Amino acid sequence: MGKIRVSLLGATGLVGQSMIRMLEEHPFIELVKVSASPAKVGQRYCDSVRWVVGGGVPDYVCDMRLVSTEPRDHKDVDVVLSALPNEVAARVEDELVRSGVNVISNASPRRMDAGVPLINPEINWQSLEQVRGRDAWLVKNPNCTTAIISLSLAPLAESLGRLFITTMQSVSGAGYMGVPFLAINGNVIPYIKGEEEKIAAELGKIMGREMDVHVTSTRVPVSYGHMAVIEAETELGLDDVVKALGSFTSFPQLHDLPSAPRRPIILINDIDGPQPMRDLNPMAVSVGRLSLRGGYLRMVVLGDNIVRGAAGITVLTLETMREMKII
Amino acid sequence: MGKIRVSLLGATGLVGQSMIRMLEEHPFIELVKVSASPAKVGQRYCDSVRWVVGGGVPDYVCDMRLVSTEPRDHKDVDVVLSALPNEVAARVEDELVRSGVNVISNASPRRMDAGVPLINPEINWQSLEQVRGRDAWLVKNPNCTTAIISLSLAPLAESLGRLFITTMQSVSGAGYMGVPFLAINGNVIPYIKGEEEKIAAELGKIMGREMDVHVTSTRVPVSYGHMAVIEAETELGLDDVVKALGSFTSFPQLHDLPSAPRRPIILINDIDGPQPMRDLNPMAVSVGRLSLRGGYLRMVVLGDNIVRGAAGITVLTLETMREMKII
Amino acid sequence: MGKIRVSLLGATGLVGQSMIRMLEEHPFIELVKVSASPAKVGQRYCDSVRWVVGGGVPDYVCDMRLVSTEPRDHKDVDVVLSALPNEVAARVEDELVRSGVNVISNASPRRMDAGVPLINPEINWQSLEQVRGRDAWLVKNPNCTTAIISLSLAPLAESLGRLFITTMQSVSGAGYMGVPFLAINGNVIPYIKGEEEKIAAELGKIMGREMDVHVTSTRVPVSYGHMAVIEAETELGLDDVVKALGSFTSFPQLHDLPSAPRRPIILINDIDGPQPMRDLNPMAVSVGRLSLRGGYLRMVVLGDNIVRGAAGITVLTLETMREMKII
Amino acid sequence: MGKIRVSLLGATGLVGQSMIRMLEEHPFIELVKVSASPAKVGQRYCDSVRWVVGGGVPDYVCDMRLVSTEPRDHKDVDVVLSALPNEVAARVEDELVRSGVNVISNASPRRMDAGVPLINPEINWQSLEQVRGRDAWLVKNPNCTTAIISLSLAPLAESLGRLFITTMQSVSGAGYMGVPFLAINGNVIPYIKGEEEKIAAELGKIMGREMDVHVTSTRVPVSYGHMAVIEAETELGLDDVVKALGSFTSFPQLHDLPSAPRRPIILINDIDGPQPMRDLNPMAVSVGRLSLRGGYLRMVVLGDNIVRGAAGITVLTLETMREMKII
Repeated sequence: MGKIRVSLLGATGLVGQSMIRMLEEHPFIELVKVSASPAKVGQRYCDSVRWVVGGGVPDYVCDMRLVSTEPRDHKDVDVVLSALPNEVAARVEDELVRSGVNVISNASPRRMDAGVPLINPEINWQSLEQVRGRDAWLVKNPNCTTAIISLSLAPLAESLGRLFITTMQSVSGAGYMGVPFLAINGNVIPYIKGEEEKIAAELGKIMGREMDVHVTSTRVPVSYGHMAVIEAETELGLDDVVKALGSFTSFPQLHDLPSAPRRPIILINDIDGPQPMRDLNPMAVSVGRLSLRGGYLRMVVLGDNIVRGAAGITVLTLETMREMKII
Repeated sequence: MGKIRVSLLGATGLVGQSMIRMLEEHPFIELVKVSASPAKVGQRYCDSVRWVVGGGVPDYVCDMRLVSTEPRDHKDVDVVLSALPNEVAARVEDELVRSGVNVISNASPRRMDAGVPLINPEINWQSLEQVRGRDAWLVKNPNCTTAIISLSLAPLAESLGRLFITTMQSVSGAGYMGVPFLAINGNVIPYIKGEEEKIAAELGKIMGREMDVHVTSTRVPVSYGHMAVIEAETELGLDDVVKALGSFTSFPQLHDLPSAPRRPIILINDIDGPQPMRDLNPMAVSVGRLSLRGGYLRMVVLGDNIVRGAAGITVLTLETMREMKII
Repeated sequence: MGKIRVSLLGATGLVGQSMIRMLEEHPFIELVKVSASPAKVGQRYCDSVRWVVGGGVPDYVCDMRLVSTEPRDHKDVDVVLSALPNEVAARVEDELVRSGVNVISNASPRRMDAGVPLINPEINWQSLEQVRGRDAWLVKNPNCTTAIISLSLAPLAESLGRLFITTMQSVSGAGYMGVPFLAINGNVIPYIKGEEEKIAAELGKIMGREMDVHVTSTRVPVSYGHMAVIEAETELGLDDVVKALGSFTSFPQLHDLPSAPRRPIILINDIDGPQPMRDLNPMAVSVGRLSLRGGYLRMVVLGDNIVRGAAGITVLTLETMREMKII
Repeated sequence: MGKIRVSLLGATGLVGQSMIRMLEEHPFIELVKVSASPAKVGQRYCDSVRWVVGGGVPDYVCDMRLVSTEPRDHKDVDVVLSALPNEVAARVEDELVRSGVNVISNASPRRMDAGVPLINPEINWQSLEQVRGRDAWLVKNPNCTTAIISLSLAPLAESLGRLFITTMQSVSGAGYMGVPFLAINGNVIPYIKGEEEKIAAELGKIMGREMDVHVTSTRVPVSYGHMAVIEAETELGLDDVVKALGSFTSFPQLHDLPSAPRRPIILINDIDGPQPMRDLNPMAVSVGRLSLRGGYLRMVVLGDNIVRGAAGITVLTLETMREMKII
């Protein structure tokens, strides 16, 4: 079986950079094309990117010339991975699929469309069956916060009632230029446009049933890592919860996929964790402060919004599709 | 009626400094003595303080010599205001009261004692009646977070059911030296020792009935101002809530007390508020992001942990006691 | 003598906002028009600004409709104050002057032009004579860092030899959106495009002679206030320096201009000052850590880059011109 | 040749933790004892440390019981490595040496003593000869800032005249608890007690001749990494400087010592570097912004204050002594 050849849209952004890093030595996915906004088309990748993902631009991509987002530039790849900004994603991705190109995307448009699988691989990989046999398909990954929260709740899903969630989201969630220092240093902004609605809706779709979710999203002066304080109605006992979270594995772990974390949920024993500075893991979520009272489970969840929340979940989705022989 | 003569314990700390500022030109409270830890006794205030509360040390206190916390040094004042650290407060304050000295204190010991009023003046000023006529009394103010949260909930108190609260507390809540830069810059610490228990217990005592409170306390890299995201079970409609909060006034407002905010609750109309950097008010709490769904009211609350949460609530309590002619 | 009627270009930016605040109750300058980028023309000021300069948008400007930067929109004012971005300033300001409109500007183009006075009022107000009697004139203010540094050196100007300067500049110097949190939190960036050349050149023009200036500019994670460590070759003794700085006053002080600081240079006695968080003054510069060794004077200088460095220096320049009866 | 057995004083601090990490798999140094302040003696290392140096406490040290700093507890090691606080170092280290124990120390006392080598291995390893054959010796490492600056200047040493240095030092230089968030977030403190004197004096001793050094030390809100802007009088041309810095190697490189960086000086080509967030290297210094004008070379230097500045320089010194067969 040959390598899966992919191109990458939004290759110069934070998520794009992270994907380039993840695919640097991938055993069966080969990144062959990178694309960015029209003004940059034709430039060398190295000349057009402000690289911030540690360790310098990987050699293999440095001399690639940026291509457009037009279908003609992506006819010869197996899958297009999209890290496009939401504003342009709908038009570009629709056009690609109409032209017969497969797309896995992080952008928000179409996530809630009935015909589009919204995938967090450990939870609802089966939903990928929906696109098997299609001429060309669109698969979506959830919002970064939803990816993190849903993973932490996956082992408890069937027992969950009402959810109260307060998020404390890092500024990288808004992109490299997204939050100016003057706005957020020494501050908390208790509002992120559209975020609360996305989390509530996408959580339901991934979990496979309507959920009663109350979310408040805040932005905090942290660079990387989204946290959430969750109060979840449940009939489980605390011991059962600890066991379910700590032992949870799923399809990606069973099939030993390259980007799958060995344990998707890491239990933090320190009373003062998880902390972004100390407990951030690229593909697993960290969970701490577990307690149960009055039928509500409290947990504090932390995940990497750029990797598990975006770049990594896309790569893991593609790995899963290949393992399922959909591609 | 002459001025009320007070002394101040813990005068060199953040809360002490804030009280000194508030009493600088007070119409009927006169600060006549300042006290600090044993090693500093005898020094000039100006020589022993690292002043951080803006605008330099007020002249009137600069040349005062620091006295001890022993009763003999406070026999000649009407009331001792205590901003002592919790570890030493119990012993010192008990001794003062036993020696016939009145104390209003911010420190945590004895807050839950049956015979000790725990006061947030706008809410339960009537509880001050409990000490009327005593030879010497101890009155307590709540934990800074509780002071802020309880004030925001006061107008809704009778209609409240279960509460889910996530706090985002500033580092000044731990004192000037309390949180090192290395621990909190770019980080969130989802645990503050003892805080969650205090908030739950004290909220009930101030509100005058047991409450079902689920609290998670976090520390964020903000200098001043504590925030809380509250989900409160209620049967009220949103319009009623808005009206109740926005029009709320109480004893301190009716009697026009010097430190009383004209409106104790300020409704923030900006969708992205309240924010510590923009919406912090010394004695009022700011409330925003009001919404109601499924029988739960969501609100985001912000208050000044040093003023309303500590120094100001003590001064306002004393003003209230004088207005009530308890002193 | 009637009020001077002015319009303001770049009214929605940080410097524009600061000017609006300064002109709110000005005794003889009346702001009658505000202008912003083409996309905003016609909107109410309040609807188009993201106000960040403390205390909310002043009422008097809130309902003004934004006008264009075209000369026709500024024919009926006495002076246009320009807080335009450098990229558009040259074209717009040239056109205004050619159309007979007077301009005082903060933008960098034309600062070094021979026919254009570059003014820091306490230092070279006499250079304003150059435009007396012209049909229409352009007057420039220096770069924010130059404004601060030159003021601190003014009393020593004649004795100065070589200068070594390291700046630590706040992010507001790059505008509200100028520096993303991800780039500067916990970081220092030892380069600001074009800054070092501007400081060296402008310092010479303001001081009235070529100077041997070695500057290194750095960006630090501070919101407001530019600092500089200066080593200045001089033959003065330390006592003379202290006296010269501390007693310095000039034309704006002698004529008691509304925006003039009583003392343009504030000597900081604390060994650990000046600090942006503690010692920032709107129109005066703070100077500390004075020492002299081997013929070099070391001083640490701090100034408000938005007020003394931009908005305030423009207003003070206009006040000076009126006092000189040039306008 | 057997392993060198060492004990470590100040093992729970930042520098101590970093040394434990460096010695985890060291080919010929074996850490066999850890020591901390009297109150902790007898405790397990894991129970007494607040570990912050990434990746968790290394297993090999976790169960060690902390010993005292008394000579009797260090009689059976070959060398004591000291990361003691300056206040206690003089007494403890003197006693150890008097008792026949060898000490390599980071603490400041005795650094300038004539009989005590002050070592930055790439520069003055020869000074270690001074202790050869002694019964017991004390060897010192310089102040962290001096270690970094001296290394960057080493290849130019003979050509250097007057030096003007402005440092921007990270908060870890003051220890984990050293700088509270309230003091330094959004601030710069242009003073560090004793630092400027140490840098000037120690630089001369390491370089082997008196130097005319003007230093201003500042503290910036950065966690790790000390920067310095240096203006160095020199007769070299820029090409010679670039070549000298970029090609510099010395004894530790020639002998391929385990902790020696391959290149002690890394030239940063990005115009906006070096930056602490991006360019920090454990044992090498990063140098950028090279320019030459009027006989002065300007360079911006960055180094890791915990590793090259403290823990690493001590280990490298010991490695050098062993290579020289002094131990």
